[in-house]
Amino acid sequence: MKTAVYRRATFNAAHRLYNPRWDAATNNHIFGLCNNPNYHGHNYTLVVKVTGDIDAETGYVMDLKILNNLIKELVIEPFDHNNLNLDVPEFKSLNPTAENIAKVIYEKLRVHLDNKYEIQIRLYETDNNFVEYPV
Amino acid sequence: MKTAVYRRATFNAAHRLYNPRWDAATNNHIFGLCNNPNYHGHNYTLVVKVTGDIDAETGYVMDLKILNNLIKELVIEPFDHNNLNLDVPEFKSLNPTAENIAKVIYEKLRVHLDNKYEIQIRLYETDNNFVEYPV
Amino acid sequence: MKTAVYRRATFNAAHRLYNPRWDAATNNHIFGLCNNPNYHGHNYTLVVKVTGDIDAETGYVMDLKILNNLIKELVIEPFDHNNLNLDVPEFKSLNPTAENIAKVIYEKLRVHLDNKYEIQIRLYETDNNFVEYPV
Amino acid sequence: MKTAVYRRATFNAAHRLYNPRWDAATNNHIFGLCNNPNYHGHNYTLVVKVTGDIDAETGYVMDLKILNNLIKELVIEPFDHNNLNLDVPEFKSLNPTAENIAKVIYEKLRVHLDNKYEIQIRLYETDNNFVEYPV
Amino acid sequence: MKTAVYRRATFNAAHRLYNPRWDAATNNHIFGLCNNPNYHGHNYTLVVKVTGDIDAETGYVMDLKILNNLIKELVIEPFDHNNLNLDVPEFKSLNPTAENIAKVIYEKLRVHLDNKYEIQIRLYETDNNFVEYPV
Amino acid sequence: MKTAVYRRATFNAAHRLYNPRWDAATNNHIFGLCNNPNYHGHNYTLVVKVTGDIDAETGYVMDLKILNNLIKELVIEPFDHNNLNLDVPEFKSLNPTAENIAKVIYEKLRVHLDNKYEIQIRLYETDNNFVEYPV
Repeated sequence: MKTAVYRRATFNAAHRLYNPRWDAATNNHIFGLCNNPNYHGHNYTLVVKVTGDIDAETGYVMDLKILNNLIKELVIEPFDHNNLNLDVPEFKSLNPTAENIAKVIYEKLRVHLDNKYEIQIRLYETDNNFVEYPV
Repeated sequence: MKTAVYRRATFNAAHRLYNPRWDAATNNHIFGLCNNPNYHGHNYTLVVKVTGDIDAETGYVMDLKILNNLIKELVIEPFDHNNLNLDVPEFKSLNPTAENIAKVIYEKLRVHLDNKYEIQIRLYETDNNFVEYPV
Repeated sequence: MKTAVYRRATFNAAHRLYNPRWDAATNNHIFGLCNNPNYHGHNYTLVVKVTGDIDAETGYVMDLKILNNLIKELVIEPFDHNNLNLDVPEFKSLNPTAENIAKVIYEKLRVHLDNKYEIQIRLYETDNNFVEYPV
Repeated sequence: MKTAVYRRATFNAAHRLYNPRWDAATNNHIFGLCNNPNYHGHNYTLVVKVTGDIDAETGYVMDLKILNNLIKELVIEPFDHNNLNLDVPEFKSLNPTAENIAKVIYEKLRVHLDNKYEIQIRLYETDNNFVEYPV
Repeated sequence: MKTAVYRRATFNAAHRLYNPRWDAATNNHIFGLCNNPNYHGHNYTLVVKVTGDIDAETGYVMDLKILNNLIKELVIEPFDHNNLNLDVPEFKSLNPTAENIAKVIYEKLRVHLDNKYEIQIRLYETDNNFVEYPV
Repeated sequence: MKTAVYRRATFNAAHRLYNPRWDAATNNHIFGLCNNPNYHGHNYTLVVKVTGDIDAETGYVMDLKILNNLIKELVIEPFDHNNLNLDVPEFKSLNPTAENIAKVIYEKLRVHLDNKYEIQIRLYETDNNFVEYPV
């Protein structure tokens, strides 16, 4: 039986939701207030789940300090106090919905974590709206 | 790989737990304080999980405004500030335990959501007691 | 300089807001959904603040176990899993608004606590609505 | 003795901290990451405290539905999903620090609430940073 | 389709992470501050998930009062206000990491719950670090 | 009118409550489980309130990064992952009740903050028990 460990972190960012292939009316219809061209923002809360076996010597699935350093380097530093659309290369041509942000975070962390671990991302945009990838 | 989106909502309701086929002593033995014939109440917190694919055009699994409107129409309006036993037809002959409330909410939402989505209900009766359906 | 100690507790109760001296239309106008004659309910969160001096021997303003036992005896036992309007004598002729519930709790606790202490009640009806007495 | 009632609300906004009378180096030195010219954002949580007497007829200090409607009209609608610096006139020449946002909210609400009430604003920029005005 | 019920509880305990088969330098390298020989401590939050079928007569998967009594007897009483390394026999020769604590709690509860139930343990060491067993 | 700014931080520590001038029976009678000679522990949450005037140039009462650095240096570093009784000089002969910990934190911060500021400490030992100094 496997064990999962979770690490929580937060970042504060601006974003705007829109599809550049659509006209303004369609963007407003689909994205409403989230399409404000001057941007709005969120305190995002990220929870990273890593599933594996408990190491008999350490009692750890993995050292959460190492996971936390990866999260800081790969997610918090590039995302925090930034504008996701303008400052983060991954969203230059990808709409920064919570779903897509979670997927980008997954892909960034996946390549830095041993394949023996399964990982999953939960991302809270607000207390009322959150997403999980992959399911 | 699928993605899940979650929407949280709350409602405040009265209820009483009892089985009309049992005598008072059995009801008190099984349901204790929850069997008060004058009712007690809770701030229920509902979390609806919808699992599907990220739409390439919107970046959404589904528009959470649409999900939120469904939750308001199908759950919050009929349940909020009501007595579940007396005011909500589904509980006229079904004991309004958290388990049964979650199942009723699932069934109400299921018929209004496209079959391409999987859905799951989490319902908090208090911070200490909560349920999930289906598992 | 004084020090305050706080103790938190919760109870789940049903209630209805209305004024028996008014007609139904006025009650509905003023109390809206809260006037449902079948009652609705809440998970109330109570925070009791006791202000005094730190005792040099114990390092306590007062023993929170003693405060907690008073809260249990005077508030939780009579209010929890009850209908405030029907089961709690103090609300037989007093509208159980959060303001009045806080004031009743204050008066019940005040007579059991040494006059050297100042006390204040905070009562959460929901995460969004709460009250404090006295100010 | 007075009673206080509290109402909580949230809004999501982008902002940037800087002083237009300073050069870029000074702004970066004082405001650090918060000075990002592309903006960043927050889920702001607002708590409005209104202190007064409990009305003997209603049991209310004031009807929180009325307070909530004022908060929606005066704060949530103009601030939510907006860029405080660009979209909100009060911050055209006022730095949108949490302190200044709280003060602006106080002044907007103060003129719409009866002088018999005292009011106070608490504003959370994050779970770790928050402000209160006036003290 | 199955239903899950969850019960939350808390305990406050001291612990120290180290491996008696390693020298001090290795323990410090791997466990850092957590290796303080004088111990540090946490408010642990435990969430027990029990999955089964809703009983048609009670509307319960299982009576949460019974689950809560088991948690109190098997976990809270032996762990709360104790030193996990010194006072809890299970950790005499097992490093009390969150992973191992969750596994011990699982094993203690598993033997007291009917095999028709699946169970899972979530344990929060802090708001930022938590684990789940089994996955 | 003054404005208050608040900064939240956390630390995890072990402690034991007892009075060395009392015998074991008296210590057990007064401090109960908290008197465990092997120690227990908590995730302490600290909130520091600083009251002053909003600076017209910065829009700040004080820069919370500076306050946060003081909290880290004076409180988190010496207290976190330590045993308050054994590792923190201030509690060598002072019982580490929440009241006394709050007072020690106040005194440590007070001497490093300009006298134009008023300060107040709130310390949560658990979600249910917390203190404030001075009142």
